[in-house]
Amino acid sequence: MGKLYVIGIGPGGLDHLTIKAKKAIEESDIIVGYTKYITMVEPLLEGKEIFKTGMKGEEERCRKAIELTKDNKTVSVISTGDAGIYGMAGLILQLENTADVEIIPGVTASSAAASVLGAPLMHDNCNISLSDLMTPYELIKKRVELAAEGDFVISLYNPKSMGRPHYLRECLELVKKHRDGKTPIGVVKNALRDGQEVRIFTLDNFDENVVDMFSIVIIGNSQSYAENNRIITPRGYKVR
Amino acid sequence: MGKLYVIGIGPGGLDHLTIKAKKAIEESDIIVGYTKYITMVEPLLEGKEIFKTGMKGEEERCRKAIELTKDNKTVSVISTGDAGIYGMAGLILQLENTADVEIIPGVTASSAAASVLGAPLMHDNCNISLSDLMTPYELIKKRVELAAEGDFVISLYNPKSMGRPHYLRECLELVKKHRDGKTPIGVVKNALRDGQEVRIFTLDNFDENVVDMFSIVIIGNSQSYAENNRIITPRGYKVR
Repeated sequence: MGKLYVIGIGPGGLDHLTIKAKKAIEESDIIVGYTKYITMVEPLLEGKEIFKTGMKGEEERCRKAIELTKDNKTVSVISTGDAGIYGMAGLILQLENTADVEIIPGVTASSAAASVLGAPLMHDNCNISLSDLMTPYELIKKRVELAAEGDFVISLYNPKSMGRPHYLRECLELVKKHRDGKTPIGVVKNALRDGQEVRIFTLDNFDENVVDMFSIVIIGNSQSYAENNRIITPRGYKVR
Repeated sequence: MGKLYVIGIGPGGLDHLTIKAKKAIEESDIIVGYTKYITMVEPLLEGKEIFKTGMKGEEERCRKAIELTKDNKTVSVISTGDAGIYGMAGLILQLENTADVEIIPGVTASSAAASVLGAPLMHDNCNISLSDLMTPYELIKKRVELAAEGDFVISLYNPKSMGRPHYLRECLELVKKHRDGKTPIGVVKNALRDGQEVRIFTLDNFDENVVDMFSIVIIGNSQSYAENNRIITPRGYKVR
């Protein structure tokens, strides 16, 4: 078996790739990924064999990537953000957990969105996906409410899709049970890549219509505040 | 005022810096950071002015960095991991929230540790710091227990220091109230940099003596399992 890299390419702009991720792509014979992600790293792919599939083809891509290493080829499976947070690392290792597989971490979507918003994640924080494709919605809601109760800064991945437009609204209602209506919320669409848009709201004046499937929603904790179009969460509870 | 970059350099090895972070360091006149972090990027610093201080000098470093930009110099404040997660972004913006400040995200410590462990963070997860320097210990414990109740994968930052050797043990007892004793726990010391050490335990056989202040502790969720010296958290609850 050849080497199999599982790479998080970060938010999508080539500048936010790690040097290690870039090197691994460059030394690969074959690159496997969702069509949209392949486009993001296109300048690095000249002369390489490409295997791309549409959305929801994750398992097909992973099986194909593993199969392609059999001829002693070096293969990279790429996805945005960090390969280890809602990325491809888990599925690959579920299918093929050998020493030939190397996970290369990247900047996860919440870190990218946070950098654009200022410093909302400075304190204890959690990442929750609102996609119910593989998690029961009841468990998602339970997590949102526990995170709100614990005063975690909350980053919502996959905040909206056609099939579940009301989840975001329902989850924010759960947050409101534990957090002031003035708590800042940031929405970043296409963070650190083409088409970036940033909006800052409060829990009370939130407009869910600006959120789409390419957005990350970050809800501040009880200490967070908005200032000059940024959200800042102070580091501690004792000083400010 | 000159440009002020707040940079997360990732886990510490130069290869895991983003291309953007490297460029920002290279175009800076002055680099500000904790002595240990400065050493990590030393090969990039030739000819630059350096301002470094010891641990706990965060506020001094931030004030100095802001002051140094006044002569129209480009200044970079560096810290490990992601600047926006327990990094310097918040403190800088608390002191100087202007358009001249740019936050450059990096690979946070939990992502780095996770990549070494395999794929423990694949599902909803949270970051909790056990340092009580700025958070009351009661709140830290509350968060750990709520995260355990919500079946979050839990990454513990600052899991141990001289002044609070028993916090980690007490927090794991709280986790055990909600999670099986066979739940895998990974400890990564110096993830993706010199001196890396990896250990995998269960909640029942955990050895806290291997943990130090340069470690990240990752506790799996109810679906996580250990296999071939890796921890894998499947992506969902419906399939495995």
